[in-house]
Amino acid sequence: MDVAVIGGTGAEGFGLAMRLAAAGHHVTIGSRDAGRGAESAAKASELVGEALDGTDNASAASGMGRDGVVAVTVPFEGHAEIYRSIKDAVPPGAVVLDATSPLATAVGGRPWQVLRPWHGSAAEQAKAILGDGPRVVAGLHTIAAEALQALGHDVDSDVLLCADDPEAKQRVGSLLDGIPGMRWVDCGRLEMARVAEPLTALLVSINRTYKIKDSGFRIVGRDTWGSSGGPSEGSSGGPSG
Amino acid sequence: MDVAVIGGTGAEGFGLAMRLAAAGHHVTIGSRDAGRGAESAAKASELVGEALDGTDNASAASGMGRDGVVAVTVPFEGHAEIYRSIKDAVPPGAVVLDATSPLATAVGGRPWQVLRPWHGSAAEQAKAILGDGPRVVAGLHTIAAEALQALGHDVDSDVLLCADDPEAKQRVGSLLDGIPGMRWVDCGRLEMARVAEPLTALLVSINRTYKIKDSGFRIVGRDTWGSSGGPSEGSSGGPSG
Repeated sequence: MDVAVIGGTGAEGFGLAMRLAAAGHHVTIGSRDAGRGAESAAKASELVGEALDGTDNASAASGMGRDGVVAVTVPFEGHAEIYRSIKDAVPPGAVVLDATSPLATAVGGRPWQVLRPWHGSAAEQAKAILGDGPRVVAGLHTIAAEALQALGHDVDSDVLLCADDPEAKQRVGSLLDGIPGMRWVDCGRLEMARVAEPLTALLVSINRTYKIKDSGFRIVGRDTWGSSGGPSEGSSGGPSG
Repeated sequence: MDVAVIGGTGAEGFGLAMRLAAAGHHVTIGSRDAGRGAESAAKASELVGEALDGTDNASAASGMGRDGVVAVTVPFEGHAEIYRSIKDAVPPGAVVLDATSPLATAVGGRPWQVLRPWHGSAAEQAKAILGDGPRVVAGLHTIAAEALQALGHDVDSDVLLCADDPEAKQRVGSLLDGIPGMRWVDCGRLEMARVAEPLTALLVSINRTYKIKDSGFRIVGRDTWGSSGGPSEGSSGGPSG
């Protein structure tokens, strides 16, 4: 699959880019500056042993077409600006994965505190800026950057996906299922991101209390997650995790 | 330990009362009506095979003293009123476990939607009403009533505890550790309830998507949870789960 990682020079995006390249996907790292994007891509290529591309954010997004995924991994303070900068580049109907948590660090607060975005969540803010064309999926808030970057280790946390479009959710889920140890759980509509995004802050608080770096969540109550298997979800298969 | 379960005639409170009685604690079920409290206690006693007491909410709370726990398990629509009704009965210094999630059902909304209480969370609302004497701990939002009532089965979900007072958090944690399968995780200060309480809505959404009844959370990243082991946490042991 073709994947653009907008903000892919940051810790979370860089880890995601490497994991997806290692899983065999064609990854383009986007950055505000095309040169830094290319630099990060070269570094990631060396670490993973697979070729990644790098360029500016808008070029990375525009290259995805309808079949790819545009993953946006940026801090909340740059979230609206980055979305405005790629808005015209994201193809109509494209699937956009928003991984931003509205941490209070955006306004000088602490990483275990969250802001309440005007639209309800960062993902809904992304949707408001992008308009009705692209299909936004919220996810990855429960995955630490450290866990993504530790290529030799399985990721020990579930991804909670929220989206209004079942096919978009399924596509992102299938993409993330390729990362060892990762499973995706269908958490409902995009507005559920209001609950899922602040979980980053809860994990930061737990990490702080126990002096660890990569606490995470596993959902229990069923043996397998991923596609809920309803007829409205299409014919795609279940999770691999 | 002496435990009062305020609102113990509801599904969550009744399940908690039975679990704690089964673990050997002395449980008093509180209700708005003393007769209904006694009735529920008789029913629970029969199901568990251990004697529970039942009375009105204020009498149940006032009987706890400084060494017990007052657990409040009421829907958000009755939360403020119930706290005002027991305020003068809760002994100063008592430990209060608030298990309420501010679900939108309180105002006719859906159980996968949440309200934002004025004080930030239901638990902070409880603290605002009770004043500085009692020590409020938020928890149990990730435990389904069905799971508590299924006495023959281990509970497969972690309890996320938030409180400003480490000793109060530890006391509630030790109490809940006695319930088979349950573990408690220290999630930081009471204000983290703003993130933990809405998890009930997320689990409702997951249950709805997958047509199940008791999804839950397990925290990963460490082998044991419970007390974080810092010197300020006292000499109590780790979790049993």
